[in-house]
Amino acid sequence: MKVLLATRNAKKLGELRRILDATGVDVELVGLDDVPPYPETPETGLTFEENALIKARAGVEATGLPTVADDSGITVDVLNGMPGVFSARWAGRHGDDEANLRLVLGQVADVPDEHLGAAFVCAAALAFPDGREYITHGHLPGRLIREPRGENGFGYDPIFVATGNSRTNAELTSEEKDAISHRGQAMRALAEILGEQLARAGD
Amino acid sequence: MKVLLATRNAKKLGELRRILDATGVDVELVGLDDVPPYPETPETGLTFEENALIKARAGVEATGLPTVADDSGITVDVLNGMPGVFSARWAGRHGDDEANLRLVLGQVADVPDEHLGAAFVCAAALAFPDGREYITHGHLPGRLIREPRGENGFGYDPIFVATGNSRTNAELTSEEKDAISHRGQAMRALAEILGEQLARAGD
Repeated sequence: MKVLLATRNAKKLGELRRILDATGVDVELVGLDDVPPYPETPETGLTFEENALIKARAGVEATGLPTVADDSGITVDVLNGMPGVFSARWAGRHGDDEANLRLVLGQVADVPDEHLGAAFVCAAALAFPDGREYITHGHLPGRLIREPRGENGFGYDPIFVATGNSRTNAELTSEEKDAISHRGQAMRALAEILGEQLARAGD
Repeated sequence: MKVLLATRNAKKLGELRRILDATGVDVELVGLDDVPPYPETPETGLTFEENALIKARAGVEATGLPTVADDSGITVDVLNGMPGVFSARWAGRHGDDEANLRLVLGQVADVPDEHLGAAFVCAAALAFPDGREYITHGHLPGRLIREPRGENGFGYDPIFVATGNSRTNAELTSEEKDAISHRGQAMRALAEILGEQLARAGD
């Protein structure tokens, strides 16, 4: 069965594929480049869950395929959990990782080191054409550092060190990152549900 | 008696003077230009109260004068109360009103109109050389608009409409704004305390 991964972010698409492939779930994963183009839906949700569902539903509606989408972000304690759902557009436009990360560093410049707690959060949604919908979650606690380090990953990875680690998420290998990441947690939980639903469909 | 108004923001200084003068409290208000220069203290507090106290204490320590300082900001509901204490440095550097305001508008660009609730918040501190310290508060609820309007005021005034108003804070006259503003509320309460303390000193 084909399952659509509904993201327009090439690096995130790679991560979703990699994580789902590693679970061994028996589906053909297709990206937005593999289906007829459809317009982007504004992420009007105020929670990760809402936005993940908005994107998954838009994929189902446009393609008729079961669709996986996630909404993820970084929550910074002294910013009251922001950037949160605004992580990808924190600097005011979508997807400028460098500007977003520099802005957060500027905002917390005067904040003492001991108050730089942060976490990566992910909500992943799976929607089926018949209306079944599932949501899973992932959460990776850690802290911000003042200067970006590392070349892997994307988004805020270079300024985030997970609890128990000394390297930033961008200094981890893909396998190391997937093993702990918010997206890894949420997508593995979603892969289990996907497997169960496929088994049911095959009954 | 001389009282120092400890702010490096010329427009805020004007507002503080105007509000306190209108209360008729019998003190000589001096600004930072009227006292020997002292270095700026980083606003390391995580609340308006802490930052107001940091600034008032720094003024007392540097000048020996009773010192008034405020820390104010805008809290946007969908940003979990941010920019909050980071309002003046939201775009990553201090005091660029236009950049700060544009950034907030960019961040909420996809947020539906009915979720644009916001408030102006002020904590005002009064510190005496003998260690007495007082804090007062002000709070003005309202909502954001998408396009700045008005030339008065400063900061986020052009994109904020107070509850019950149709004009932005930047479209109000100074008198209209002071009558309702967060800073007006907090400073009038502080003027009362200042008056009582002066009366006590005169006993």
